[in-house]
Amino acid sequence: MSPRVLIFSGPTREHLDPVRFLSNASSGRMGRELALESLRRGAKVDFVTGPVDPARLPAGESLTLHRVTSAREMLERGRVLFRSCDAALFAAAVADYEPAECRDRKMPKSECTLTLEFHPTPDVAATLCRSKRAGQWTLGFALQSDSGREQARDKMQRKHLDAILLNTPAAMERDTLTCALLTAADGTFDDWGTISKTECARRIVSAIPHFSCEK
Amino acid sequence: MSPRVLIFSGPTREHLDPVRFLSNASSGRMGRELALESLRRGAKVDFVTGPVDPARLPAGESLTLHRVTSAREMLERGRVLFRSCDAALFAAAVADYEPAECRDRKMPKSECTLTLEFHPTPDVAATLCRSKRAGQWTLGFALQSDSGREQARDKMQRKHLDAILLNTPAAMERDTLTCALLTAADGTFDDWGTISKTECARRIVSAIPHFSCEK
Repeated sequence: MSPRVLIFSGPTREHLDPVRFLSNASSGRMGRELALESLRRGAKVDFVTGPVDPARLPAGESLTLHRVTSAREMLERGRVLFRSCDAALFAAAVADYEPAECRDRKMPKSECTLTLEFHPTPDVAATLCRSKRAGQWTLGFALQSDSGREQARDKMQRKHLDAILLNTPAAMERDTLTCALLTAADGTFDDWGTISKTECARRIVSAIPHFSCEK
Repeated sequence: MSPRVLIFSGPTREHLDPVRFLSNASSGRMGRELALESLRRGAKVDFVTGPVDPARLPAGESLTLHRVTSAREMLERGRVLFRSCDAALFAAAVADYEPAECRDRKMPKSECTLTLEFHPTPDVAATLCRSKRAGQWTLGFALQSDSGREQARDKMQRKHLDAILLNTPAAMERDTLTCALLTAADGTFDDWGTISKTECARRIVSAIPHFSCEK
């Protein structure tokens, strides 16, 4: 039977009002490459994407596209889909903070300093992985300005992930990334150097146990 | 001689740190349509765009592309270009606020509420139009959740614009907009109803005095 792969991709937007939002420059390319490679390997893919153009994803029965805007919407969609997936790849650059309040109407610009409160967004990966079943395999991403190996290891354990891909903010909006994979099974970082997102996706999908018996 | 048209387009991003920013969903479509129509009418175009893909703009001698990220960068580029333009079209959805501080490194996510201060960004249109020469013609956009006619009129006068196009946030990321043009010369709103951005650009460019003798 085809493995079911759940992929989270793109940025999220956390709105202050109908016009303004907090976000990041995630292009969604890594997520798209993971979807393409999973499809190529015969998976059924649920692709949950923040508001970027998911161009180049083949339409077809094997791919279901779920469009969301905010971290909360991404989590809610994920709750429904997570139960039935074999592997979940958390490649979205979820905004870490949401405004304490979202206005119904566009705030008029004022000449005064604006003080806004932001709450941490719900953690999509950590929340879903808390209910991980035996046999489910999950991978997260750690984007660190510093080398950040210890933070990445801590993040993998804290979020109950099976693997984490460490990379740097330079990866955003580019076709390549400098990265290293840490798996819970192995416990050490596998340095992949600077590679294309296509190649990175190939290696990540190969690390999913449901595919690892194939070439 | 070809009129020189200066067009500001797209959103701006106001960074909190290397990853996170405040922005809006401007697609830059209105600005692109204005550039295409100006080129079609024989203008030389300087196109200052925030970080969206300026797809479909023909490369060529008549168009110079200037890529910027923040409101401050847009203003600085505008200062250099404004002097020599015949008309300036302020179609960018400039972020109205910038964080009081931009960190050099990605802020780690914390479980605490984050309180951030934002200052108003410099007003690109108002600042440039303060040094308007005789014969220069300028148009701004007013995006209002409410009907906002009085605010639009006030904005036109306060910013020393020659015309303002009133539209609604629904125009963002769409191909059509519901709009009305107010010109300082005429003093009344001309209701254009719901039209395509292509048609809107055609009408706006026709309103530029340097083109108005042509068909």
